Amino acid sequence: MNVRMSVYILGFLTLFEGVFMAVPTITAAVYQEKELTLFAGFALALMLIGFVVTRFKPTNKSLYARDGFVIVAVSWILLSLFGALPMYISGAIPEFIDAMFESVSGFTTTGASILHDLDSLPKCVLMWRSFMHWIGGMGVLVFIMAILPLAGGQNMYLMKAESPGPSVSKLVPRVRKTAVILYAIYFALTVTEIILLLIGGMPLFDAINLACATAGTGGFGISNAGMMIYNPFCIWVITVFMFLFGVNFSCFYLFLCRKFREGFTAELKVYLCIIAFAVTTITLDIRHLFENFGTALMHSSFTIGSLLSSTGFSTVDFNLWPTFSRTLLVMLMFVGACAGSTGGGIKVSRCIIFFKNMHNELRVMTHPRQVKKVKMDGHQVEAEVIRSVNVYFACYIMIYAVNMLVLSLDHLDLTTNFTAVVATMNNIGPGLNLVGPASNYDVYSGCSKCMLIFNMLTGRLELFPIILLLSPATWKK
Amino acid sequence: MNVRMSVYILGFLTLFEGVFMAVPTITAAVYQEKELTLFAGFALALMLIGFVVTRFKPTNKSLYARDGFVIVAVSWILLSLFGALPMYISGAIPEFIDAMFESVSGFTTTGASILHDLDSLPKCVLMWRSFMHWIGGMGVLVFIMAILPLAGGQNMYLMKAESPGPSVSKLVPRVRKTAVILYAIYFALTVTEIILLLIGGMPLFDAINLACATAGTGGFGISNAGMMIYNPFCIWVITVFMFLFGVNFSCFYLFLCRKFREGFTAELKVYLCIIAFAVTTITLDIRHLFENFGTALMHSSFTIGSLLSSTGFSTVDFNLWPTFSRTLLVMLMFVGACAGSTGGGIKVSRCIIFFKNMHNELRVMTHPRQVKKVKMDGHQVEAEVIRSVNVYFACYIMIYAVNMLVLSLDHLDLTTNFTAVVATMNNIGPGLNLVGPASNYDVYSGCSKCMLIFNMLTGRLELFPIILLLSPATWKK
Repeated sequence: MNVRMSVYILGFLTLFEGVFMAVPTITAAVYQEKELTLFAGFALALMLIGFVVTRFKPTNKSLYARDGFVIVAVSWILLSLFGALPMYISGAIPEFIDAMFESVSGFTTTGASILHDLDSLPKCVLMWRSFMHWIGGMGVLVFIMAILPLAGGQNMYLMKAESPGPSVSKLVPRVRKTAVILYAIYFALTVTEIILLLIGGMPLFDAINLACATAGTGGFGISNAGMMIYNPFCIWVITVFMFLFGVNFSCFYLFLCRKFREGFTAELKVYLCIIAFAVTTITLDIRHLFENFGTALMHSSFTIGSLLSSTGFSTVDFNLWPTFSRTLLVMLMFVGACAGSTGGGIKVSRCIIFFKNMHNELRVMTHPRQVKKVKMDGHQVEAEVIRSVNVYFACYIMIYAVNMLVLSLDHLDLTTNFTAVVATMNNIGPGLNLVGPASNYDVYSGCSKCMLIFNMLTGRLELFPIILLLSPATWKK
Repeated sequence: MNVRMSVYILGFLTLFEGVFMAVPTITAAVYQEKELTLFAGFALALMLIGFVVTRFKPTNKSLYARDGFVIVAVSWILLSLFGALPMYISGAIPEFIDAMFESVSGFTTTGASILHDLDSLPKCVLMWRSFMHWIGGMGVLVFIMAILPLAGGQNMYLMKAESPGPSVSKLVPRVRKTAVILYAIYFALTVTEIILLLIGGMPLFDAINLACATAGTGGFGISNAGMMIYNPFCIWVITVFMFLFGVNFSCFYLFLCRKFREGFTAELKVYLCIIAFAVTTITLDIRHLFENFGTALMHSSFTIGSLLSSTGFSTVDFNLWPTFSRTLLVMLMFVGACAGSTGGGIKVSRCIIFFKNMHNELRVMTHPRQVKKVKMDGHQVEAEVIRSVNVYFACYIMIYAVNMLVLSLDHLDLTTNFTAVVATMNNIGPGLNLVGPASNYDVYSGCSKCMLIFNMLTGRLELFPIILLLSPATWKK
């Protein structure tokens, strides 16, 4: 374990979190809120600490796989802790565990909240919550890599541990340039959404907040009234962007390079098929609940976009929909978005590899001599990737089981617990019943909230970094 | 595909089902019921058809893996169909789909029922239902192999496809002798239970029925009053035997051979640990619902034995227990009994391999150079077994997803559907809410009942035979 290099990277993380805090500071200044000094102070303190720590350049810059996992896990825990402190100290969220929950939910782009009254929150805190989504969506270490020439080529480990999906492909040979391209696409899409929302007549503050929350597939609300105060145009803009932010960013890059055939990957096709199937069947299933077909289509598309991309916004209380719709929505929550997007969940490509491998193995049972390899987009899927997908599912099941037992101590119903786990592990936000869109996570005790915080961090980092951080084997020589 | 050999084996199956039907026929004769002629006629007809078909001995007796899966799958469908007909024709169960549900539930040792009034059923039908459990528990093809010298050594494929667990070990070099030993232990344990129940003061008819249902880990009731009409001694006898029938029968064989160390396998240890943990925590959790500790312990032990071994009897409505207990019970339903027992479920050994492999792969992530193999009971687990366990889980998840969508069309709640699937796939019987111990499966539509029938057959045969029977790839040359 390269401790000095790890501390050096964590120093940069602290420095940048200070820089990020300029956003709520400016918001507080614009709206002349009393939290201005607090946020400004925090921003300066973090920048100072980060600056001092990063003065000590390590001579040995080499990182191993293990270091990658540990650095990413610790980074996200620190990031959330620093993010929670101003909300806690300002009194916006009186309990520390609640502030931590909200901060983790923000950075991991979950959007699950324990707050009852959003209208009473200062604008700077609302802005900070939304901006956390934007930072967390693409990944903070990816951001640092985009800005700084950290190490030779070994920061691939960091990217691997932070990026969503079963395998990471570099868009261009250099990791740093890949990170820059990803952030450029991300920024451009966010700005486009803000402009479209403004054209739709949304106030600037709302447009920036909701665009940040959509981009990161987060889902924090900014008012008690929710989404239904906006007109259908804005709702459709957000719907389309939720679907877009669930697409693998390499597809966008390939489209920009006019490589349309390569960009239209197997994963993207399956993602679009899932959307088409879900929108059709759910719209028909909920048709009778709305005055006309158009409204039903709008609400079903919005909800599907929201849950599949793991954003978690809601225009209606889908907990009141028929069983078929609710069941399909829960299944979409498990699947999640494409790998390499800002969305959470198991990821479409991981599901494809899982079932392709299953299909392959079943054929081997009846035709033992016809050994074939699993292929995707014309390339053979490496054995290592298949194994890691299987381990992912095993870890997922194990964490799920532990969760169900811990949450059951709070005496809530099974559907609430079951969907609370998927909603936090897959960084979605709302679940069903008591954690449905009309309710929130304050129904849980402190112990359960800790479990859910663990889920959000573990889910955002695709299980392994947090599990390995806690595993004794990692710390053995 | 060796069609002639397959038909030959199916002929024996028909012949033996005719022989098995002597049991309800005798019961009808003893109680002078009007169904006597029907059962006797059916028994004779099946024996005659079976006798004729088995006159045509195939010259080529070789069987391949594919044949094994197909024969086993078709055998069980035929077995259930023949078993359902007398119940349907006699008018005991007026709807054909219901009779089929009951018959499949019987042979697969599920014990899920669609009947509302057991007291109105003739004794011969009750006996037939319980005896189905006994036949299905150990496997009907295993029975045929125990009686007949079918083929050289290739009937191992049949045993592999019908026996529960991730891998099949022969107790002795010859498959036939292994089958005889298994049935001998099975028979001896059943008779012991009958004797103990009689000592406890249970009427003979009830003792035989309940012993058959316990032995096969089935769980059909025989009266509307349920289990609570029996005294605590009988309840404890059934509890102990439910746990015993969930143990791998090779352990019993090794104990009989005085090989205690080998008999006390890793799977058995984990099975006992699970029981100890579940009994302790659930007893404490439900303590306040009963007048004293002893009663709470009795009901918790009985329920855990019933659900872990996949029997499905109930002394109380555990659906009314606290969330923690219900959650843990659902998890036990997934785990199931030991491989090589008569119990259903995913099996303890499969879970062990699954998580051991996960642990191993996680270590490889941080220590890539320390490659270790997964071991169990001192032996290395073959790569083929690990792969088949992974495929099993993948198939399980896929079937679960399809089920949840199909069942959701009936507009019941999610917990009912979720537990109905595990209760049928793992051959348990009761689930929670509307399919809880106080209710039954008649709440579902015909379409859903077909899905549940599929689950019971698929679950009993450990997924692969039924999936491969339906897979087009199996039928390609």
